[in-house]
Amino acid sequence: MSRPNPLEIGRPATRIDGLSKAVGAERYSVDHYPEGMLWAGVKRAGIPHGRILAVHTGEAERAEGVVRVLTRKDVTGANRQGIVHKDQPVLAGSKVRHCGDPVALVLAESREALARALGLVRAEIEPLPGVFDPEEALRPDAPRVHEEHAEGNVLVRANIETGLGKTALRECPVVVRGEYEVPAQRHAFLETENGVAWLDNDGVLHMNVSTQAPFRDRFEIAHALGLNPMRIRVVAPYLGGGFGGKDGSTVQCLLGLAALHAGGRPVKMRWDREESFLAGYTRHAVRMRFSLGADHDGTLRALHCRLLYDTGAYAHLGGEVLALGMEHAGGPYRIPNVLIEGLAIYTNNPVAGAMRGFGVAQATFGIERIMDALALKLSMDPLELRRKNALRRGDRNACGVTLTASTGIESCIDELSRHPRWRERQEWKRAAPCFKLRGVGVATVHNAIGYGRGLPDTAIAKVELTPEGRFRIYSGVADMGQGNATAYAQIAGEILCQDASGVEVLQPDTALSHPSGSATAGRTTYTFGKALVKACEDLRLKLLARAALVLFVEQPEGFALLPGLIRHLPTGRDLPLARLATLLPESDRFSIREAFMPVAQDSLDSGKEFKLGYPHLLFSHAAHAAFVEVDQLTGKVEVVDYIAVTEAGRVLNPQTFEQQVQGAMAQGLGYALCEDMHIKEGRVLANNLATYIIPTTLDVPDMHCASAEIDEPSGPFGMKGVGEIGFNGPLPAVTGAVQDACGADVRRAPLTAENVLTAMRARRTGRTGRARRKS
Amino acid sequence: MSRPNPLEIGRPATRIDGLSKAVGAERYSVDHYPEGMLWAGVKRAGIPHGRILAVHTGEAERAEGVVRVLTRKDVTGANRQGIVHKDQPVLAGSKVRHCGDPVALVLAESREALARALGLVRAEIEPLPGVFDPEEALRPDAPRVHEEHAEGNVLVRANIETGLGKTALRECPVVVRGEYEVPAQRHAFLETENGVAWLDNDGVLHMNVSTQAPFRDRFEIAHALGLNPMRIRVVAPYLGGGFGGKDGSTVQCLLGLAALHAGGRPVKMRWDREESFLAGYTRHAVRMRFSLGADHDGTLRALHCRLLYDTGAYAHLGGEVLALGMEHAGGPYRIPNVLIEGLAIYTNNPVAGAMRGFGVAQATFGIERIMDALALKLSMDPLELRRKNALRRGDRNACGVTLTASTGIESCIDELSRHPRWRERQEWKRAAPCFKLRGVGVATVHNAIGYGRGLPDTAIAKVELTPEGRFRIYSGVADMGQGNATAYAQIAGEILCQDASGVEVLQPDTALSHPSGSATAGRTTYTFGKALVKACEDLRLKLLARAALVLFVEQPEGFALLPGLIRHLPTGRDLPLARLATLLPESDRFSIREAFMPVAQDSLDSGKEFKLGYPHLLFSHAAHAAFVEVDQLTGKVEVVDYIAVTEAGRVLNPQTFEQQVQGAMAQGLGYALCEDMHIKEGRVLANNLATYIIPTTLDVPDMHCASAEIDEPSGPFGMKGVGEIGFNGPLPAVTGAVQDACGADVRRAPLTAENVLTAMRARRTGRTGRARRKS
Repeated sequence: MSRPNPLEIGRPATRIDGLSKAVGAERYSVDHYPEGMLWAGVKRAGIPHGRILAVHTGEAERAEGVVRVLTRKDVTGANRQGIVHKDQPVLAGSKVRHCGDPVALVLAESREALARALGLVRAEIEPLPGVFDPEEALRPDAPRVHEEHAEGNVLVRANIETGLGKTALRECPVVVRGEYEVPAQRHAFLETENGVAWLDNDGVLHMNVSTQAPFRDRFEIAHALGLNPMRIRVVAPYLGGGFGGKDGSTVQCLLGLAALHAGGRPVKMRWDREESFLAGYTRHAVRMRFSLGADHDGTLRALHCRLLYDTGAYAHLGGEVLALGMEHAGGPYRIPNVLIEGLAIYTNNPVAGAMRGFGVAQATFGIERIMDALALKLSMDPLELRRKNALRRGDRNACGVTLTASTGIESCIDELSRHPRWRERQEWKRAAPCFKLRGVGVATVHNAIGYGRGLPDTAIAKVELTPEGRFRIYSGVADMGQGNATAYAQIAGEILCQDASGVEVLQPDTALSHPSGSATAGRTTYTFGKALVKACEDLRLKLLARAALVLFVEQPEGFALLPGLIRHLPTGRDLPLARLATLLPESDRFSIREAFMPVAQDSLDSGKEFKLGYPHLLFSHAAHAAFVEVDQLTGKVEVVDYIAVTEAGRVLNPQTFEQQVQGAMAQGLGYALCEDMHIKEGRVLANNLATYIIPTTLDVPDMHCASAEIDEPSGPFGMKGVGEIGFNGPLPAVTGAVQDACGADVRRAPLTAENVLTAMRARRTGRTGRARRKS
Repeated sequence: MSRPNPLEIGRPATRIDGLSKAVGAERYSVDHYPEGMLWAGVKRAGIPHGRILAVHTGEAERAEGVVRVLTRKDVTGANRQGIVHKDQPVLAGSKVRHCGDPVALVLAESREALARALGLVRAEIEPLPGVFDPEEALRPDAPRVHEEHAEGNVLVRANIETGLGKTALRECPVVVRGEYEVPAQRHAFLETENGVAWLDNDGVLHMNVSTQAPFRDRFEIAHALGLNPMRIRVVAPYLGGGFGGKDGSTVQCLLGLAALHAGGRPVKMRWDREESFLAGYTRHAVRMRFSLGADHDGTLRALHCRLLYDTGAYAHLGGEVLALGMEHAGGPYRIPNVLIEGLAIYTNNPVAGAMRGFGVAQATFGIERIMDALALKLSMDPLELRRKNALRRGDRNACGVTLTASTGIESCIDELSRHPRWRERQEWKRAAPCFKLRGVGVATVHNAIGYGRGLPDTAIAKVELTPEGRFRIYSGVADMGQGNATAYAQIAGEILCQDASGVEVLQPDTALSHPSGSATAGRTTYTFGKALVKACEDLRLKLLARAALVLFVEQPEGFALLPGLIRHLPTGRDLPLARLATLLPESDRFSIREAFMPVAQDSLDSGKEFKLGYPHLLFSHAAHAAFVEVDQLTGKVEVVDYIAVTEAGRVLNPQTFEQQVQGAMAQGLGYALCEDMHIKEGRVLANNLATYIIPTTLDVPDMHCASAEIDEPSGPFGMKGVGEIGFNGPLPAVTGAVQDACGADVRRAPLTAENVLTAMRARRTGRTGRARRKS
């Protein structure tokens, strides 16, 4: 039988959304312009800290084309948003805490009328002194971002300690120290934050929105606006990018509020790029101090580090980003004595939240650079130092968690060290052209999968035999471009033995699909896929049993599910699925199954400040090598070549696997080389894509992407998540390569020509050690 | 926790339908009188065989209150009914084959108008010679009931042969022979055949009908009337008795036809007792010849028997009844050489079909009486002869099927022989009063469970958490009084840990429940219960997993389902089921699971004439002892005491278990002592309950009911079916007891005073052997 488009596990199946996206037929949330719709928009504070004296809306209300102007008093619910800690107002009433805080919501007949009206709303705000530096925010006399918060400007303060903690450092024959800093980063997705909402005649609030967490959104909206969450329907079409920036409410609560006052008309809200930079979430800027102790042979003995995460004006996921960063601060290494101190700190900067690498990328810069410093001090090969200390299955990691699941960091290192490009690196470096210095840097990284302990990482998959005899998967987790919908089609295709024409995937709709958590934490294919495996196996057995009934066969054995039909093998009789479907009632044509991600069972003494999301049991791993040329005269860094060896369990689809690694690497190179929002006194200076530079295809090298496949027994078809791991390598690997090339020890990202040149000069003048402070 | 009405397995839980039935609140099908309804009734042939020349309906059509008079030409479908072989017309067009054949269907505004109109319909029928005796029907010159049937009057002719077959008889040191006969029997349920039907505005045909097979009914009606079966909805409320007589179409196709011509009005049809006797199904009358060979020590060596089943005018389940009778003709004994010949024969008698004991009761009379004859000849104790030859698990039975399932006949015999009443039987016999002779007879019997090979014996159970937080079982098999609904409530209560207030059972509705076969063959609690066990276990796990989600617990372990709530044991937090239900969409609040009954896997040389329903793997077993007094002067038999030891796997509910055994025994005593339809030349002479005598409570002795429980691993909680087994013992046990008392060897049931007296006289005059012919 010819199967033109096989959906088998392990094959590079074509993306099911590829064609419709390529020809522009796929309808993103932003493509919805319902008839009779209104436009909604927000008047923002414009100053980072201040007391609201009045919001004058009269002039705007009287303007042509304006339907309503809403302020804090129009919000009937709690007026608070936040995934874990709810401290962010839908509309600010008494105080603004960052420049993007919204003070009024305008509904208008057109975008032009909306823009005019926003210009006519006048917010009288008395400025307050702001706090923009996390260390300054810790001072007793620092301005308080949230007066009512008991811990001052500290959102979360936590310690992770194992063995003798930092005291072990004193006994170490060799100790290296360093300070590092990373700035905020913006997701810069193609499709900015947007959505459409309306109230139907039954009072149900409908929302079609670009979101990573449609099921949670219902509760966010309901809490903020005082509604019944079960009377809110959220539809999440394919996203034009998310990367964490659409996890949590962006437009949702504002849109819900607008819809409640739109007289049943649909309302659309779409942030432009500047508003997205101002009011969206950023990656946390972090300050880090690392001390690493080892034996003379490179065996790691002790780690002490202190991590300051600038969470901006509101909590969002600040505590959880800090937790994950701290959990990874020890790297994928055996370190018996550890003290990791961490703080997530309120400032009047833009709100920081989830972004691919979720706190891990920042801490990884610290641990990988201090590993390089140790290698340098011991004159060891950096990769050999890492290999020597690499965690193995059965070890305890830096947090004291026993690694009972697949642990493939050694496999990655082995695979990298066998790579021809790696083996020829010395020859390549020696062949550098004039005024160019060549260097090679490495990073070995890990990234946890899933929510971690304390928060159920579950999914509920539904798969249905449609009346037409095809299989429809009701996905509960959004596909923001990572390709999980294709993976789901493959899982169903493999288990149900169908080709692409027999399988379709419905994107999340809270009225049709089932709660499956957010599209975050590298969990979507793992957790939903695991539930889907069960649902498909269940439906398969059900349909074979129903076929026995229809074909009058007394036992369910001897049946095979084949593309479009069920065959009774002993008699050769075929029952088309389309026929079977007409004989079954709707309630007997589907299966719904759930899955839980396993969690670490170790009882841990430290880290108890983290109520949820700590620790993790499953990790993906990678070994990266960056090959760079540094311009001796300008400091400009060019990444010429890149090797990424990734272990994320079994690979379901080599093509989407590589796409994820390549995409993460490109985003990571942006983080390494150029991306900086240039936030000064709470204001975003690089607030559009003309000034905030992300890499283009010309800036990204050809890349060698390899997989060190090992099986993760708990995963669907042995897989783990691969969405985030690829992001963590580029910054430390490129920084190491630059140091290898020119000796410059850059301690603050990104490695712009200016920063590299400064570091090269500092080295010549003998200054080292401290990260260069911003401003 | 006090649980006033525990639904635990093994406990005598109160019947869930007990109260509503006792106070008359339960609405049977016959209790439905929808507004604006019409009455429908049938004009019947009144002669047993004839050619229809004309049906004059004009006068009836013109009568007051008459809406329509329909004849054969109004039937647009196949006009054929029959569960396996479809040869029975909905309305006879060219020929009538028994007195009850319907020739016209009248719709009227009232019962009175209907009765008048039926009197005005005139069927011109040219009488044909009839055939009423199965042996005469086999003669080449016998009148043909179905001219088009290739095998003459033979519906099915089959042989079962094992070992050397009948030739082995020649080698046997001891051989006994006998001929036996049993008459037709009527189910005599309280609620006669009836139903209500209407066509809705969407063209869906609705029917509320007293039926044992609502899901199959759709296909019967659809085939007969040319409709789409998926556009027919059949609702089957509790039945006021069924016993097999409501398996297959009675009123269904006629009612469907009436509804199609009622202009959307509901139509009711209800047969009175006479019509029920005339047109309903009967137990097959059977003629039997048995030869049994043994060693001198009683070890059975060979069996030859020939069984003639009078199936009446139409096939109905005649072939399958014959098959089951033949399968049981060897009794629960090891007999290495067997030839069982059988025929199901068309006559112009009323249609025979399914009835409790389904062919088995008849054959059991033969094998048990010939066993008694052997015991007498060998001067062995009848029970010891049976014990010596009793089948054990692992043996091959008379059909060559390896008994891999539980086989408890020895346990029953052991239990019976330990019974104090049994042990004192000689003393009791000796103490007979004047003119009374006392005797004790035994029967050891078996009865297959389920449909047997070739026909899937499956069920699909649905259990739902209702929005109110209770559990609703969607039963797919009718409860005709046997108490399966209570067993389902117990199964759900046990697995879901709910008391009676938390569980409800919905009777079958093809639009809400799922195809689960018929309420026949002792299969309902086994097969549907097996599916229900899986559905409940599935739903339980689902709800615990959902509770984890709602309570924010990361793993589904540590939860307990308790009455009305789910508890997280580590934290003690409770989640009321009513609360959980509001958080789940309807599609995630239920589970649907199927089960298959296992079938025999032996490859058999004989019995291949049976396309379906042969052989079986699972049997229930029983050992019965009847204690009788025979009046020396009148021949009147009184059953003074009765012991029934039953093995039907584990007992789920001792009360309903005993009710089933007692009910079957009472019905079996009627069969043994008094029930005879007195069919002469195709006419039912005893056609109402004044002349057709069934036992009253005064005729039924106190009974000792015991269970020899063993576990059937394939059954739900280890059970097998108990609905039929109890029927098979009374006739042979009472007959044996009568012979023990007075020496009379009665070979034709029932044992009326007249029959017994005749046999007593025959013994005195030395005549024996042949069964007394009816007529």
